[in-house]
Amino acid sequence: MDIKLLDKNDPLLPFRKRFKLKKGVNYLDGNSLGALPRGVTKHVQSVMKKEWGVGLIRSWNEAGWYDAPVRIGAKLAPLLGAKPHEVIVCDTISLNLYKLLVMAARLRPERKVILAEKGNFPSDTYIVESVARLLNMQVRYEGEIDETVAVHTLSHINYKSALKQDMALVTRAAHEKGSLIIWDLAHSSGAVDLKLDACHVNFAVGCGYKFLNGGPGAPSHIYVAEQHLNAIDQPLSGWFGHKNPFAFDESFEAVSDIRAILTSTPQYLSLASFEKALEVYDGVSMQAVERKGQALGDVMIALYDEHLSAFGVGLETTRESIHRGNHVSFTHEHGYKIVQMLIKQGIIGDFRAPNIMRFGFNPLYVRFKDIYDCVMAIKKCLDTKSYNEMTMQGIVT
Amino acid sequence: MDIKLLDKNDPLLPFRKRFKLKKGVNYLDGNSLGALPRGVTKHVQSVMKKEWGVGLIRSWNEAGWYDAPVRIGAKLAPLLGAKPHEVIVCDTISLNLYKLLVMAARLRPERKVILAEKGNFPSDTYIVESVARLLNMQVRYEGEIDETVAVHTLSHINYKSALKQDMALVTRAAHEKGSLIIWDLAHSSGAVDLKLDACHVNFAVGCGYKFLNGGPGAPSHIYVAEQHLNAIDQPLSGWFGHKNPFAFDESFEAVSDIRAILTSTPQYLSLASFEKALEVYDGVSMQAVERKGQALGDVMIALYDEHLSAFGVGLETTRESIHRGNHVSFTHEHGYKIVQMLIKQGIIGDFRAPNIMRFGFNPLYVRFKDIYDCVMAIKKCLDTKSYNEMTMQGIVT
Repeated sequence: MDIKLLDKNDPLLPFRKRFKLKKGVNYLDGNSLGALPRGVTKHVQSVMKKEWGVGLIRSWNEAGWYDAPVRIGAKLAPLLGAKPHEVIVCDTISLNLYKLLVMAARLRPERKVILAEKGNFPSDTYIVESVARLLNMQVRYEGEIDETVAVHTLSHINYKSALKQDMALVTRAAHEKGSLIIWDLAHSSGAVDLKLDACHVNFAVGCGYKFLNGGPGAPSHIYVAEQHLNAIDQPLSGWFGHKNPFAFDESFEAVSDIRAILTSTPQYLSLASFEKALEVYDGVSMQAVERKGQALGDVMIALYDEHLSAFGVGLETTRESIHRGNHVSFTHEHGYKIVQMLIKQGIIGDFRAPNIMRFGFNPLYVRFKDIYDCVMAIKKCLDTKSYNEMTMQGIVT
Repeated sequence: MDIKLLDKNDPLLPFRKRFKLKKGVNYLDGNSLGALPRGVTKHVQSVMKKEWGVGLIRSWNEAGWYDAPVRIGAKLAPLLGAKPHEVIVCDTISLNLYKLLVMAARLRPERKVILAEKGNFPSDTYIVESVARLLNMQVRYEGEIDETVAVHTLSHINYKSALKQDMALVTRAAHEKGSLIIWDLAHSSGAVDLKLDACHVNFAVGCGYKFLNGGPGAPSHIYVAEQHLNAIDQPLSGWFGHKNPFAFDESFEAVSDIRAILTSTPQYLSLASFEKALEVYDGVSMQAVERKGQALGDVMIALYDEHLSAFGVGLETTRESIHRGNHVSFTHEHGYKIVQMLIKQGIIGDFRAPNIMRFGFNPLYVRFKDIYDCVMAIKKCLDTKSYNEMTMQGIVT
């Protein structure tokens, strides 16, 4: 395998320059917190100094703060295979999933089951359980979808195994039984070539701080298919979702567009960072991003076969690239210590309990060389048992 | 009235230097968006460049991102008359009110009424109505509190009239009937001398971007009295409220402290701005803040009597300073145009439909001179009818 040639022929390699990456750092945790794109710090600084400091309250209109959730949603939409008016940026995934679950349940009032996913990201599960408790519904984690199911919710790409669902197929199966579907795109938005409209998805939520590089805790996004936009009925109904928020009406009347999913004042500095960060996708083909993501994973797995499997390292991720997102997970009993040892050497991946070493690759800035260096460092760590130097303290994210 | 002397004798005047205020701007809208404190832009820049750009994912632990909601809550607590472990910073007021309302209803399962407030900020009302609908409760906006009331929620200081409730009295009345109470402190936190613990308040929510100057859309805060901390049971239960979030348990078990009110990943850049902004309160007595706020209002009302009442301007705010928050509201049929005319001259107040001109004063940076200049400018505007130059377009916040 000619790693140098792979990098040389990589059409996305030039985009790496759009990020501020410190020398000596091999960043394989962009699936947890994306790297800092160039220009974002300066932009936020300008928002603070000029728009907040000088414009003050006037900036809600004059600097476009008020329209930001819609404006940024429209910029993000093409990355998701959605129309501009179907996407909005706000709050967090858990909060947004809550809104959509209650809304979906209200659209199927005669059905009493939420079909959820075993092994999904736990925060999603906690939210599903909470909604079921409030609405007297049942949660099912296994079994086929049937006519009792009001809504099916699952992750497009699993946070541990990287298993990628067939979005078109699963969505169709839900619709065939009259159920709605909510996809969690936490590990998909910005990472793979999404086609929400073409797959006839009803609803989706995604993350701003992983592959989209929006900054720590950057706001989430929501997709509501056009057919549902006129009838958004969600429980976290605050003034930003009102038809006429500045009339200060005593009774709530939802606006008839995507803004009805908003609750209240956005945390604008985080939103501004996210908006500027989206510019790294200017001129980028999501098809190319998906293709490179699959190639990076294929290379990592081939190197695993050659160098790591003999050490008792398990492969938690599928070998089939079309069913795999942009990370590869290995298991090892000393996984936690190995990840720490790598971090000490500037190779940053993460650990997921109980024994998973997870390496994510944002195709916009990760090179084939980085994947190679990582596998070789794991091999050396296992060969020399240097992980024994590490303790069980330290990072746990 | 010797305005110069009032400023000269003002013990808080030196704190004005802690803010970046542009010359020629008389900012009387800090009750809507607080001014930019010095040092905040630089701090956020450093968070972005060093903690995000260089520290990357490691900063969740090493730069204290993960602990920030609790850490900042503890810093804010003294301003609210609360213990450090009773306050946490997160999300928005509407979202936080939702959490607390459901929690309060669960603490009084046999009661089916939410007592709310007519004329409260509409977003609060929308949330109250939403919770009542979900839990099959009734909302009452008038009448005395009685044994059917599970929870009473109202604003400490009204967003239009500035009427300040007697927190101790209203809380006691609720408790006498076995009801819980949730105060909305949107116009109180950082503005007046709060005593949440001493008033035996159960719950409260407050705003980060008004008197606390945390930046556009800065996160909200929640107060949960010590007696309830062990049994937080709220519906937006995400992984940040879990007993052991990084164990990725499939079932939710709330942590037994204030963190159980969290949902998920905080929008950290906005949070960092809020944390740094809190430093303007270092060495500030909240008693002095409240006293100056009352004096500023008294002066504005005295000037109103002398200069504005003859022009048909109405006073929407009480004359009794102990029942008044830190803004004064005037009514006038041309209020919208007058506010625009003032803004043109650098005097920034705001308009609230249908006819309210609202002028807020943060005692940390507003001078008596600013109040005087504002009233004189309104007088001139009315005298010359110059507001006729303005149209009905423009700012509506």
